[in-house]
Amino acid sequence: MAGNSFGTLFRITTFGESHGVALGVVIDGCPPGITLDLDFMRNEMQRRKPGQSKLVTQRKEEDEFEILSGVFEGVTTGTPIGMIIRNSDQRSKDYSHLENAYRPSHADYTYDAKYGFRDHRGGGRSSARETAARVLAGSVAKQILLQQHVIIQAYVDAVGDLKLEKPYTELDLSLTETNMVRCPDPDMAEKMINLIAEVKKDGDTIGGTISCVITGTQPGLGDPVFDKLHADLGKAMLSINAAKAFEYGSGFSGTSMRGSAHNDLFAIDPETKKVITTTNHSGGIQGGISNGMDIYFRVGFKPVATILKPQQSINVEGETVQVEGKGRHDACVLPRAVPIVEAMAALVMVDHMLIQKSMA
Amino acid sequence: MAGNSFGTLFRITTFGESHGVALGVVIDGCPPGITLDLDFMRNEMQRRKPGQSKLVTQRKEEDEFEILSGVFEGVTTGTPIGMIIRNSDQRSKDYSHLENAYRPSHADYTYDAKYGFRDHRGGGRSSARETAARVLAGSVAKQILLQQHVIIQAYVDAVGDLKLEKPYTELDLSLTETNMVRCPDPDMAEKMINLIAEVKKDGDTIGGTISCVITGTQPGLGDPVFDKLHADLGKAMLSINAAKAFEYGSGFSGTSMRGSAHNDLFAIDPETKKVITTTNHSGGIQGGISNGMDIYFRVGFKPVATILKPQQSINVEGETVQVEGKGRHDACVLPRAVPIVEAMAALVMVDHMLIQKSMA
Amino acid sequence: MAGNSFGTLFRITTFGESHGVALGVVIDGCPPGITLDLDFMRNEMQRRKPGQSKLVTQRKEEDEFEILSGVFEGVTTGTPIGMIIRNSDQRSKDYSHLENAYRPSHADYTYDAKYGFRDHRGGGRSSARETAARVLAGSVAKQILLQQHVIIQAYVDAVGDLKLEKPYTELDLSLTETNMVRCPDPDMAEKMINLIAEVKKDGDTIGGTISCVITGTQPGLGDPVFDKLHADLGKAMLSINAAKAFEYGSGFSGTSMRGSAHNDLFAIDPETKKVITTTNHSGGIQGGISNGMDIYFRVGFKPVATILKPQQSINVEGETVQVEGKGRHDACVLPRAVPIVEAMAALVMVDHMLIQKSMA
Amino acid sequence: MAGNSFGTLFRITTFGESHGVALGVVIDGCPPGITLDLDFMRNEMQRRKPGQSKLVTQRKEEDEFEILSGVFEGVTTGTPIGMIIRNSDQRSKDYSHLENAYRPSHADYTYDAKYGFRDHRGGGRSSARETAARVLAGSVAKQILLQQHVIIQAYVDAVGDLKLEKPYTELDLSLTETNMVRCPDPDMAEKMINLIAEVKKDGDTIGGTISCVITGTQPGLGDPVFDKLHADLGKAMLSINAAKAFEYGSGFSGTSMRGSAHNDLFAIDPETKKVITTTNHSGGIQGGISNGMDIYFRVGFKPVATILKPQQSINVEGETVQVEGKGRHDACVLPRAVPIVEAMAALVMVDHMLIQKSMA
Repeated sequence: MAGNSFGTLFRITTFGESHGVALGVVIDGCPPGITLDLDFMRNEMQRRKPGQSKLVTQRKEEDEFEILSGVFEGVTTGTPIGMIIRNSDQRSKDYSHLENAYRPSHADYTYDAKYGFRDHRGGGRSSARETAARVLAGSVAKQILLQQHVIIQAYVDAVGDLKLEKPYTELDLSLTETNMVRCPDPDMAEKMINLIAEVKKDGDTIGGTISCVITGTQPGLGDPVFDKLHADLGKAMLSINAAKAFEYGSGFSGTSMRGSAHNDLFAIDPETKKVITTTNHSGGIQGGISNGMDIYFRVGFKPVATILKPQQSINVEGETVQVEGKGRHDACVLPRAVPIVEAMAALVMVDHMLIQKSMA
Repeated sequence: MAGNSFGTLFRITTFGESHGVALGVVIDGCPPGITLDLDFMRNEMQRRKPGQSKLVTQRKEEDEFEILSGVFEGVTTGTPIGMIIRNSDQRSKDYSHLENAYRPSHADYTYDAKYGFRDHRGGGRSSARETAARVLAGSVAKQILLQQHVIIQAYVDAVGDLKLEKPYTELDLSLTETNMVRCPDPDMAEKMINLIAEVKKDGDTIGGTISCVITGTQPGLGDPVFDKLHADLGKAMLSINAAKAFEYGSGFSGTSMRGSAHNDLFAIDPETKKVITTTNHSGGIQGGISNGMDIYFRVGFKPVATILKPQQSINVEGETVQVEGKGRHDACVLPRAVPIVEAMAALVMVDHMLIQKSMA
Repeated sequence: MAGNSFGTLFRITTFGESHGVALGVVIDGCPPGITLDLDFMRNEMQRRKPGQSKLVTQRKEEDEFEILSGVFEGVTTGTPIGMIIRNSDQRSKDYSHLENAYRPSHADYTYDAKYGFRDHRGGGRSSARETAARVLAGSVAKQILLQQHVIIQAYVDAVGDLKLEKPYTELDLSLTETNMVRCPDPDMAEKMINLIAEVKKDGDTIGGTISCVITGTQPGLGDPVFDKLHADLGKAMLSINAAKAFEYGSGFSGTSMRGSAHNDLFAIDPETKKVITTTNHSGGIQGGISNGMDIYFRVGFKPVATILKPQQSINVEGETVQVEGKGRHDACVLPRAVPIVEAMAALVMVDHMLIQKSMA
Repeated sequence: MAGNSFGTLFRITTFGESHGVALGVVIDGCPPGITLDLDFMRNEMQRRKPGQSKLVTQRKEEDEFEILSGVFEGVTTGTPIGMIIRNSDQRSKDYSHLENAYRPSHADYTYDAKYGFRDHRGGGRSSARETAARVLAGSVAKQILLQQHVIIQAYVDAVGDLKLEKPYTELDLSLTETNMVRCPDPDMAEKMINLIAEVKKDGDTIGGTISCVITGTQPGLGDPVFDKLHADLGKAMLSINAAKAFEYGSGFSGTSMRGSAHNDLFAIDPETKKVITTTNHSGGIQGGISNGMDIYFRVGFKPVATILKPQQSINVEGETVQVEGKGRHDACVLPRAVPIVEAMAALVMVDHMLIQKSMA
């Protein structure tokens, strides 16, 4: 219950500190008989990796993973899948000047308050490095979803004040991976890239938002009370480092609408003969349960806390100190957060598919 | 795992349909020795109750609860607290015309998709009536928090386009309960009341947002990875009927800031000698763990789906039908959602207090 | 996590003290569409009820239950089933002389040690009255199993030194309910009845063992590591009041055998063409997973702690006191424990059926 | 929920097959600040290791473990402790002749029934090799208990028909580790060693029982209903490979006693002034909660299924085949099961200590 597991029937447990020996993840509850595509998994890891473009931190994390169990001759066996990623480029000395200081808007002080004890090298479990284990687990979940024709696509829709005003239905999401900021609109992508470069030159950082779309979902996923599908997606997203906000469907903007305009009318799709809604303010989820329409949501990320400028703070003794970031950090996490958002969404969707299977 | 329980160490399980015999909740893990103030609990129920003002639905739910177990001579015993609320005013015939129709933006269709089976009387578990059980459990949690001087206060900060622009620090939250819309700014309250009245006259509904502030929290609550304090608060809020969005601290607006402006600098409070931050964009939570500053967040609610106007839809057979709300419904759920937001927040906070106690 | 829930996908939560307002149980995860036979449920309650024969305590517990939710027009809806049983015959004054005394081999002292606080009336949650809620939930689980042709039959196979030496395969289990001690061998039943009568006349109590047989189980239920089917059955049985021991298949006696004699050889049933074993020392479970053969196990129950004789003890202050049972108690719990054993077994089996369904 | 986790607040998840790359365990919920003694941990692993004496299998498993996370400068940090043990001596070809055969009383058939898929090399997750991960986690739990002066000692008390008749109170448990069968009575130990040698020469196997004693426990551990301390200990023990039976305190033999003889009278210890009982048929647990007296229980293990003799069986196609063990196997698992019993007991005790801490 110390919060390092996620999911119910498809359940992952992650472990590992940013500057320890290795990160790892155990997937318990993966169905047997899934043929794993290791190249797909490596590519997912590559998308999250630092140093992949000039936009992001130049820390080198090779992020090569090793599958220790649960897979026999390339196929899942139904037993727990243990996987690890060794840490290779641990410049702990980048952090030694910070041993006793509380970095602003980091977890240093809260860790001391919680554990009375802290590994000061790079954030320990609160480091975004932990998300490598999530992406690895998510790359398994995605393959299960693909078999059911469920596709999850996230993209950057805002960096600072630069916001894509078009909804996902007017974008070509196949362009997301064609630029290093992962924005499917090439013009906006270029502006975002320039903004991040400028912010980086200032030694500063900037936040933004990511949108995510899930297509191909069966109706009936999610539970009607506490484990509503969007509540579980919300928790999943808010558990990602730097996430501050979550909305699905019409979100905050829908709150100023009237019911008569907001309601999604049911109809029968003339081609597929399936139940559809003529609008989708519900974001594919009604009463906490998927209705078969596209699920879409948006996640807000604050600017990275580590800046390469001096800031005033205090240390463990309560004395005033100056802190200044020295390591290799991201000026904007958004591009690297895209695969993390997808991974967490995949974990939630597979879990609810298995839960529904047990009931139906 | 069917999603009717919430919490880890302070864990509630709710049951009951809107038009069944009774609602109920079991609290498992309530510490022994808490003297329960029944008047406080009744008052909390009263705040959520329909019919409390002309703004809200005139359904009569007496919402009198009965404590069946776990309390001896007015004091909790550490054993599970079972409580029920009988349903008295069940006008099931208000729904009989809807037996086979899928009401727009309700859970009718998704229920059929999930269970292959549905109690068509008023929404079953997806009815907001279920939240009575949450408020009842929350009224116990609040009393535990009060012993630790933790106070939770929510208020309506937007109805439709009417938005309070001031932050909570510039409001007098003691005024929240002085008006029927539960907005602490009397002028704005009046405008909101007029807007809701107008919407109601149209047979329509309107959404809005609720802000919530938690003061007096100890630092160290929350877990650093999946069970971040704000992730659990987010799930709690998103599990409330009609909730579409959640943000904490600087939220979505913080995503356009730069790190140098967003970071909260640490300092020592000259009076209390405690660690504080000079700003609070973090919303009292850093790295998923409380830092002792005020926790604040905002929840967006869509307009109620039931409108007293004809809408086109389909029925179970896929035929086109007209549906029109006939029961007694809320034109705006916001005022009644205030105690629900507080109750869910209280459940999360007590749970994390007990979890931290087991570790420290 | 306060231990009042049992099961994973078919999960029950019980509440209520022996001398409180009511007992109750919530079943979360019951599949939709099960038509409930209330007479069957009443009969199960009747089998556990005190006062059903001269052998058992003459306390009157009507044990009439009320279904509050989760059932619509006699059929389960997939939502939580809340059920309560009001306490009617609470002679709390039978216990008033015991307010401060620690009754030998009861939970009085351990409760004080745990909670620092105790409802002294009749044992609170540690009272066997709590098992009424289990039998009620079990009566739902049994109906689900019946649809799959899974039958659970328990019987008394020893009272004191009187032991049935025959294995279940040589007994006619349809005779179990024909006598008040619930032993399928009529001669032995008579001896047991006489022994219990004699023990009762002495104001004393006596223990014994119950055997349980589960037929019709599909192969593949149970998990290979911690949640082995027999480990979950063992926990279920050991959680019943007064249970001290559990063994399945060859049990303790199998531990003195050699592997060559103990191993169950596989064969194909010539009629059904199914895989069988020619012996069944495994008790229908191999590697923690059912193999389709009969599952059988045995549970040992200690003599009831309350005796109608003076015993020396201490009170809360540590002073020496005399205690003497005065209420209406069982001289032997075995006959009434038979339906409890069956109920707990049914809960485990349904849970593992749903878990397997989610995986397969 | 696939059964590879154990515990609530001190929760372990194990992974790894006998013939895969590595075994591993993640401990989530280990309190911060525990200094780990690696030599102690290595010694525990040594006690479980194959090849440690002529009595046991000569498979070489070096069982060297690597700590990947959760420990900084030798001290636990409160974050998850990931540990792995690489498999080095995997003679998979010892099993190749068994690829399609169902070995009698193994999990081969039940695995196929459950997963429709099987890693035929040495049992996969159902192999006793998985217990290495448990012993490793248990060696951490034991160190936490030692800080509280809680000592867990198990020993072999029967092999085949050779049974120690003395209770643990008349034995010198410090002698347990002085002989390779781990029986604290040197004469009996010699007899057991000879019996095992004889059985081994026959290519056969033999079962037995292990007793375990826990001293120094505080009163108040365990929950009164489903999570009774002995129910959790029972599940823990029954989850160990080859375990068939569990009893605590007076166990099965107590079931033939009368209440007047079985009840444990309370008294005050004249020296410590603490509450004690003058006998201990309760085995240190009353109403599911520890009372501060010694906790003791016994676990029965069946003879190992793999024998070096031909046995008739069937294969996947249902054809009759002969199987004959060829690998290096134990003739008697009892000596190596002693540290496994202790490890599982330690996990249960630490978990309940943390649960009680959250409540008290």
